[in-house]
Amino acid sequence: MTRIELKPPYLLYLGDVPDDHHAKTGHGIAYWRRDRCAGQMRLPGCPVDTGLPELDVAGAIDAGVGTAVVGVASVGGVLLDSWIPALAALAEAGIDIAAGTHARLRDNARLREAAAKSGARLIDVREPPPGIEVGTGIKRPGKRVLMVGSDCAVGKKYSALALHRELAARGVKADFRATGQTGIMIAGEGIPVDAVVSDFVAGAAELLSPANDADHWDVIEGQGSLLHPGYAAVSLGLLHGSQPDAIVICHRAGLEYIDTDDVMVEIPPLDEVAETALRLVQVTNPRCVWAGISLDTSAMPDEQRRGYLADLAGKYGLPCVDPVATGMADIADFLLESVK
Amino acid sequence: MTRIELKPPYLLYLGDVPDDHHAKTGHGIAYWRRDRCAGQMRLPGCPVDTGLPELDVAGAIDAGVGTAVVGVASVGGVLLDSWIPALAALAEAGIDIAAGTHARLRDNARLREAAAKSGARLIDVREPPPGIEVGTGIKRPGKRVLMVGSDCAVGKKYSALALHRELAARGVKADFRATGQTGIMIAGEGIPVDAVVSDFVAGAAELLSPANDADHWDVIEGQGSLLHPGYAAVSLGLLHGSQPDAIVICHRAGLEYIDTDDVMVEIPPLDEVAETALRLVQVTNPRCVWAGISLDTSAMPDEQRRGYLADLAGKYGLPCVDPVATGMADIADFLLESVK
Repeated sequence: MTRIELKPPYLLYLGDVPDDHHAKTGHGIAYWRRDRCAGQMRLPGCPVDTGLPELDVAGAIDAGVGTAVVGVASVGGVLLDSWIPALAALAEAGIDIAAGTHARLRDNARLREAAAKSGARLIDVREPPPGIEVGTGIKRPGKRVLMVGSDCAVGKKYSALALHRELAARGVKADFRATGQTGIMIAGEGIPVDAVVSDFVAGAAELLSPANDADHWDVIEGQGSLLHPGYAAVSLGLLHGSQPDAIVICHRAGLEYIDTDDVMVEIPPLDEVAETALRLVQVTNPRCVWAGISLDTSAMPDEQRRGYLADLAGKYGLPCVDPVATGMADIADFLLESVK
Repeated sequence: MTRIELKPPYLLYLGDVPDDHHAKTGHGIAYWRRDRCAGQMRLPGCPVDTGLPELDVAGAIDAGVGTAVVGVASVGGVLLDSWIPALAALAEAGIDIAAGTHARLRDNARLREAAAKSGARLIDVREPPPGIEVGTGIKRPGKRVLMVGSDCAVGKKYSALALHRELAARGVKADFRATGQTGIMIAGEGIPVDAVVSDFVAGAAELLSPANDADHWDVIEGQGSLLHPGYAAVSLGLLHGSQPDAIVICHRAGLEYIDTDDVMVEIPPLDEVAETALRLVQVTNPRCVWAGISLDTSAMPDEQRRGYLADLAGKYGLPCVDPVATGMADIADFLLESVK
């Protein structure tokens, strides 16, 4: 198996983090995949609440929980001592534990013992599965659209999830393909491409969006940015391996420089960002098209948003949307009309 | 220590491979770094000969050998059983063993025991050293020139070594920076960037060519190609992290397609290859220039070579050389004149 796969239904483990900001994964899973969630488990006083039924260990067993997903991040990415007793009890009951924390589940002796007793899996979703090989570039059937960011953290995951939901709602065969730990926990499967050895990152992307029906769409979460001084390698490997039929540029309105403390890298006009990606993707899919821009306009007053998006759409002649405020319908329309 | 470093002088271990083709590393070290070599060791009947003094274990100890370098590759990249007794004896005598084979030295129990007894190191040069972090893009003093290939195996390592030798012969402060296993064994240090996790590949390139004197040149071996469907991620991380002041395009005369069995990827005109690299390197060094083309013309009749190179030089207005047939002087001239 060359993809991480989580067994549903999930128990969202929320521990005792101080606020929603530290529970983005938990909220993301509850929002995007509520149908896969059986409940949540919290320590006393935890202020985070996904609204899912509260379950204890016995309740989780009764509900047939397949995987307890650590849906919170501590400062420093560690597994807090206070989380371990409940997680160990769940593992001992045969329930898989999954986490995207920097600290590995399997480095915790108590969890390791508990899982060994029952045969439960400890799934560190930051760790790529074994068996990934060098990308071949061989053309695969099926359609693919990749989110290409102007920077990290500009809404690539959200855009992909929203576009997938839009396509699925129209009855189009589609899968969301997760490339990072949060996306993997939401999707229940995927490959953390940034953790793959650089020789194999394109190969990982090939495995992530395998051959499929000719009318099936893989909606692929992006990673990093071709403009990022640290992460561009990941982005290019993902671009080549995904061999996308279309790319969506993701950007945060108003962002002028790559978000790094170390250097000033100016983000060029978005058509240049797209053009660079289209130029590079020639290697594996010369027919790839630019399908539009997905913008995070959350910092913009509501009355400005529509004009801003319309101006951009006029400038580039392509759909320009905010996946939260306006939805991805225009981009879905474009894809279904333009990519045959 | 975030770079592999081999202790000189070397004993080249050549084992019993059938021909020179399987001894490229040994020949490369003997050719480029003869001053670091104390001798060679062969099994009876080995047809390969670097011309270095023949040493047995006692002789290697007497010669003060620091590292026995496995300078040959078996079919399949394994460590042949017939090689182990001598390597174990060397390790037991406190001599480090280094190899770039797919099979790891430390996976061999006998070598592991021998090395443990003496404290000798088993150095698998395909394994990146620990402690590599995300690239920052912060500008470093010193000058850097990177070999950028149209494909894999088009002479990037040879070109870099020849350019380094040319600069050093002129009294220019310079280092050859190795990015792959053979280069590392020749240089005695380096980082196998293609084995680094993709998130850290630009960071590895930053460590490989650290801050230096303003008039010092790092001549950096390239890896892969931005056009290769499997390896482009490595190439882009190396390009960004190297933040080169100049790039040299490396190409094999007559090569029209990327060398892969799986797909046909046409190599565009070489100025387009350069332009793509220059466009991408804007992120970390907007002042980077294209310093010329280094061509492998070994398959070309001698009488055609000069005209071919002159035509190309006229077409692009840049030095076009063959590092073996014509040497790198023209490119060295260009660098020293154009990069201040």
